[in-house]
Amino acid sequence: MSLLVVGSVAFDSVRTPYGEAEGILGGAASYFSVAASRFAPVRMVAVVGEDFNEEHFRIFASRGVDTAGLQRAAGRTFRWYGEYVGDMNEARTIETQLNVFEQFSPRVPDAYLDSSYVFLGNIDPVLQLHVRQQLPKARLVALDSMNYWIRGKPEDLRRTLAVVDIVVLNEGEARMLAGVANLKKAAVEIRKLGPRIVVVKRGEHGVTLFSEDSIFSAPGYPLDDVRDPTGAGDTFAGGFMGHLARSGDVSEPNLRRASIYGSVMASFAVEEFGLGRLLQLESQEIETRFREFKQLTHFDV
Amino acid sequence: MSLLVVGSVAFDSVRTPYGEAEGILGGAASYFSVAASRFAPVRMVAVVGEDFNEEHFRIFASRGVDTAGLQRAAGRTFRWYGEYVGDMNEARTIETQLNVFEQFSPRVPDAYLDSSYVFLGNIDPVLQLHVRQQLPKARLVALDSMNYWIRGKPEDLRRTLAVVDIVVLNEGEARMLAGVANLKKAAVEIRKLGPRIVVVKRGEHGVTLFSEDSIFSAPGYPLDDVRDPTGAGDTFAGGFMGHLARSGDVSEPNLRRASIYGSVMASFAVEEFGLGRLLQLESQEIETRFREFKQLTHFDV
Repeated sequence: MSLLVVGSVAFDSVRTPYGEAEGILGGAASYFSVAASRFAPVRMVAVVGEDFNEEHFRIFASRGVDTAGLQRAAGRTFRWYGEYVGDMNEARTIETQLNVFEQFSPRVPDAYLDSSYVFLGNIDPVLQLHVRQQLPKARLVALDSMNYWIRGKPEDLRRTLAVVDIVVLNEGEARMLAGVANLKKAAVEIRKLGPRIVVVKRGEHGVTLFSEDSIFSAPGYPLDDVRDPTGAGDTFAGGFMGHLARSGDVSEPNLRRASIYGSVMASFAVEEFGLGRLLQLESQEIETRFREFKQLTHFDV
Repeated sequence: MSLLVVGSVAFDSVRTPYGEAEGILGGAASYFSVAASRFAPVRMVAVVGEDFNEEHFRIFASRGVDTAGLQRAAGRTFRWYGEYVGDMNEARTIETQLNVFEQFSPRVPDAYLDSSYVFLGNIDPVLQLHVRQQLPKARLVALDSMNYWIRGKPEDLRRTLAVVDIVVLNEGEARMLAGVANLKKAAVEIRKLGPRIVVVKRGEHGVTLFSEDSIFSAPGYPLDDVRDPTGAGDTFAGGFMGHLARSGDVSEPNLRRASIYGSVMASFAVEEFGLGRLLQLESQEIETRFREFKQLTHFDV
């Protein structure tokens, strides 16, 4: 089933203890699309500048991502310069150049209006709501946000949360949005705002999924090398929504499996800089790691 | 089967965002014993001062803990003053008074020499080795340590690690001991020092168990209220070793179950100050929470 994503496409320059990369394709919509495309056809709504060339389009094309909704604007593409130090748990932003992203006004092509699965990447909640309202046929809508919007546009964010099914946040964002330090209580508060599912991303510590009457928690996949954590959260969302769109099953047991597929994809993403590992991936590797997650977490009662 | 613990008994004064408690019974051997006693008979080797009175002995007696190895020395019992702030992930020590613990020389009573399961709590590795050598019949020996000994007595610690089966550490300690930031690689290095099992405690993020050809990872139990994290690690060890001693099964699948029982006990411990919750616990609650852990982590392949 069709899966639509709206979010950023960027050129990232990243330094980690393992090396550096300059001006590589990144942004939430890129990581999401490349990951989700392993599971279902993906439609992308985003904006790029004049410096986004054929070579970059070919990256999306190689994964069958539909870029009819990828607008081209006068100016330069969004650029992010950041680094990770020490245990690499948090990015340090050196510079953000919004460029064409500053005036981004997402337009959903007519051909996308029947999209059943939707991921509203981390952009202005006003724009997220605008996109949501153009997709009345959406069966499942997930939203990502961040501290900047939680603090800066709380009322707009609440209006948008009221019309989505799933919210995907990291621990700190969940606590800030709920105004409660305890994560279990924070999830209860966030569910009252609208989303029936709260997905809390915990980086190397895994993910926790809060729904009406159950909690699912999965650890992170133990990796030998984490070279670049950039995009891990959006890659998680891509695997998560991709599996749901592929299966057409939004039951609680399948949401659990979806969060494992999300974790699998994120665990691959961080093994190399940028989209490198995700683009090289064989389908069989995904299924193998999914089963490894089972071995990692299984115990007999 | 008989389970011996050597470690500290202390009076703790603790302040957390949820309140405070003064001079309550604590210390690694206390938390371990009270937790492990739910599973198997426990023998304790530790030292207390003249201020340790009948009321305190009765606490151990109420759990059937054998205190024949609990030495009484002239002076005051070990005292720790600490507090937890914010997310309570780390204790801030306000004051440590070693008192009688400073001259602690563990003596293993003759009646304990046949102990099959042994937990060497976090004390000087020279003393841990001394105790280990007196227990040739031990079937499974686990050791806890900390940064203080890793930095201060690395050679003694290595000698002791060479003769134990399991080492229980937190993430930072594991990284420091191995001299490697990546946890999976750190476990490989630590296993080369002797222990065939490395248990990494991750606080609210759960636990990871590294053995020869498998890794098991369990998330933390989502709690509504964490009032006092003191003793969580030793309580984990108590449930872990207690289940192994009870079952007499040290296979990898049972080590997984043991780490869940450890997590169950730790999750109860932090719900109240000191030993409060552990002493009140009904056996049925332990089994219920064990099954809840299964529900928390299960997904269909």
